[in-house]
Amino acid sequence: MTTFELRPIGRVVSALTDASTAPRQPDEGAPSAWLHFEVSVLDALSSLSPGDEVILLTWLDRADRSVLRVHPRGDRSRPMEGVFSTRSPHRPNPIGLHRVEITAVDGTRIQVRGLEALDGTPILDVKPLLGEIDER
Amino acid sequence: MTTFELRPIGRVVSALTDASTAPRQPDEGAPSAWLHFEVSVLDALSSLSPGDEVILLTWLDRADRSVLRVHPRGDRSRPMEGVFSTRSPHRPNPIGLHRVEITAVDGTRIQVRGLEALDGTPILDVKPLLGEIDER
Repeated sequence: MTTFELRPIGRVVSALTDASTAPRQPDEGAPSAWLHFEVSVLDALSSLSPGDEVILLTWLDRADRSVLRVHPRGDRSRPMEGVFSTRSPHRPNPIGLHRVEITAVDGTRIQVRGLEALDGTPILDVKPLLGEIDER
Repeated sequence: MTTFELRPIGRVVSALTDASTAPRQPDEGAPSAWLHFEVSVLDALSSLSPGDEVILLTWLDRADRSVLRVHPRGDRSRPMEGVFSTRSPHRPNPIGLHRVEITAVDGTRIQVRGLEALDGTPILDVKPLLGEIDER
């Protein structure tokens, strides 16, 4: 089957550097972080403002793409599940979805609240929240 | 910047074949559709059941990746916006997010309700709804 090429449009800049200690959910204490975008996508950012809630799509570059089943939340006492029923980063195409709130916009740098992605994670896309605006 | 390779894990099989007449939102009459997955990801599907609401990630293979600003909803009477504030398929990395309900599971074929993706659209991933289960 044909493959497709993702071109990262920026990187996460965050104090979270270690997957083993990073929070699993934003409400477990995910910090504010900065999104540093490429200058080439500046026009695509132009309508984002502080207060906007958006979905950030990232490439979970430390994931294992060969994993198809996992213990949910890494808890070995729970039975294994297919990864498509979980949010494990380990999956055939490790795309991360993160609901965040924009707190500042400074040119190609955007600050967000509640991002559990690790420092250096490549950014793929930014979208409005699901269900608010049409897909096409 | 390094690029990443997406490997489609299946295809949408739908009566929707024409982007110009397809609904913009599920509630505009998106039909049921089948998702035909590769046998190689069968284990990753194993915990999905009828009644589950999931987020389907697709590759919008007919999108124009060079577009950075659009008229929202294609309405030329509205001022242009940066694509990251819209759900336009035209964007640097054209990943589609679709909230759907599973209505049947038959091995590597899964039927869903309310999918506005076109016939043949490559499938990238399936995830639980945002906010229900942890990301890591």
